Amino acid sequence: MVDTSRGSQAGTFTGGEHVFPVRVYYEDTDAGGIVYYANYFKFAERARTEMLRDLGVESSRLMSEDGVALAVSRCSAAYHKPARLDDMIEVRTSVLELGGASLRARQRVTRDGDDLVSLDLRIACMNLSGRPARLPRRVRARLETYCNANQQG
Amino acid sequence: MVDTSRGSQAGTFTGGEHVFPVRVYYEDTDAGGIVYYANYFKFAERARTEMLRDLGVESSRLMSEDGVALAVSRCSAAYHKPARLDDMIEVRTSVLELGGASLRARQRVTRDGDDLVSLDLRIACMNLSGRPARLPRRVRARLETYCNANQQG
Amino acid sequence: MVDTSRGSQAGTFTGGEHVFPVRVYYEDTDAGGIVYYANYFKFAERARTEMLRDLGVESSRLMSEDGVALAVSRCSAAYHKPARLDDMIEVRTSVLELGGASLRARQRVTRDGDDLVSLDLRIACMNLSGRPARLPRRVRARLETYCNANQQG
Amino acid sequence: MVDTSRGSQAGTFTGGEHVFPVRVYYEDTDAGGIVYYANYFKFAERARTEMLRDLGVESSRLMSEDGVALAVSRCSAAYHKPARLDDMIEVRTSVLELGGASLRARQRVTRDGDDLVSLDLRIACMNLSGRPARLPRRVRARLETYCNANQQG
Repeated sequence: MVDTSRGSQAGTFTGGEHVFPVRVYYEDTDAGGIVYYANYFKFAERARTEMLRDLGVESSRLMSEDGVALAVSRCSAAYHKPARLDDMIEVRTSVLELGGASLRARQRVTRDGDDLVSLDLRIACMNLSGRPARLPRRVRARLETYCNANQQG
Repeated sequence: MVDTSRGSQAGTFTGGEHVFPVRVYYEDTDAGGIVYYANYFKFAERARTEMLRDLGVESSRLMSEDGVALAVSRCSAAYHKPARLDDMIEVRTSVLELGGASLRARQRVTRDGDDLVSLDLRIACMNLSGRPARLPRRVRARLETYCNANQQG
Repeated sequence: MVDTSRGSQAGTFTGGEHVFPVRVYYEDTDAGGIVYYANYFKFAERARTEMLRDLGVESSRLMSEDGVALAVSRCSAAYHKPARLDDMIEVRTSVLELGGASLRARQRVTRDGDDLVSLDLRIACMNLSGRPARLPRRVRARLETYCNANQQG
Repeated sequence: MVDTSRGSQAGTFTGGEHVFPVRVYYEDTDAGGIVYYANYFKFAERARTEMLRDLGVESSRLMSEDGVALAVSRCSAAYHKPARLDDMIEVRTSVLELGGASLRARQRVTRDGDDLVSLDLRIACMNLSGRPARLPRRVRARLETYCNANQQG
């Protein structure tokens, strides 16, 4: 069921979390010598996208086949320690709640097991005119298993 | 006291808020046709930087002369309506609290008076090795006036 | 004819060039302490967009009303000197050639009259399925005057 | 000699080229539905960084141990076909020339063997005050082998 054609970049599920590796490049850093604060939200979105892809759900198909998109409606980040150029970091994603038209996720950016940034997100399912829409059944089913697994893990 | 040499891009103080205009370009949007969620944090940082510059405080001088930087330690955003290509939007910044080594700001992204995104930030003053540092006296003095003005406004 | 409602961010035509000011923020820099090389292409696109807007042509309307977009088909940059945090720089744009379905532009990024980066671009007019399309008549007419003015300037 | 601890994201050398996979995320796209033109330069820099890392050369160590950085002094891109959301693309890098203080690289962005974008770059070795510097001996040695291999391949 899981797409295995996507090559070497996807993550893995471990202990109820989806773990996705990210390398820090010059583009991610700023003149302070560290990763620019907004860029962790890019890393986090890559990780959520790969978590969904690992569950068989592709963003572009959601749009073309189901006529919906998953959009962040709220997010927050707490910055504990900075990541730097060449660091190999990981984004660890958990689904905390699964509503009819939204979900809540927690993400942690870590380096060697150390927490760098903690993120909390509310993600809404929307149709193409921007109104709330129910999560497609197959997306829901796959996330449900995962969300359950997560609560038990 | 206020730097008037910076040309046409700076903001204005109105009713206890600093108002900074931002134009939306292709670089800011994504395949959903709207501004990418992380990019509002870029707009917000531009606005905070210009608010400080309008108060006579430049980021690069803070670093070279005072040996400190202002770094976001926490942030959150709530997305109400999307901004789109070519939109002229505004970032409205208020300083809510002013501590010894940190401050709290609220920012609203608006279009024609309509709220698009609300942001809340805690900003820490740090020395170049990343430890908390007291806000330089002149920065504090200028923000204090502004923070007071804001509370009365 | 020219949109004057866009506030304080647009550029000016001077001596056959369109001059657009850009402030350098943290988001534009990298861990080397200078503007990241790819970001000059963002600045350049902002400047081209504002040049067109100053001529009465908006990207989003081109798409919705004319069913076309202007897309870069070739570009090059030569980096002479770096821009840094807080720098106020300018992007100077000239239209060099105006074909039926494309144009060629030269752009220079300058600081206090000093050349930092030189860019050369070929821009193609395309319909929404990505095929070459003729430049809309009104766009062509406005650019023609400007292109002529430029050759005489 | 080659760092094998970097996990799953690095590329491979095939037929004289270094091949590095890149997944396209929302952050990379724009309102035209395709990858924003400047972002291919980010993909290209990730690929060059991984090519060097695969040869045992890390950007951050170059800076801290050798006091030099590799900076793009010229670059160009020709856009043939666009990449889109969720595409898995590859950046193929060849070193064409290796001078005392600079090198020239060609990079192709491909999807399923199809050329999307062709890039040409001149990369200069610079010391921390921005002046030309000789390529460190070990970097040169590793690139030389690779550059030769490339000419024969």
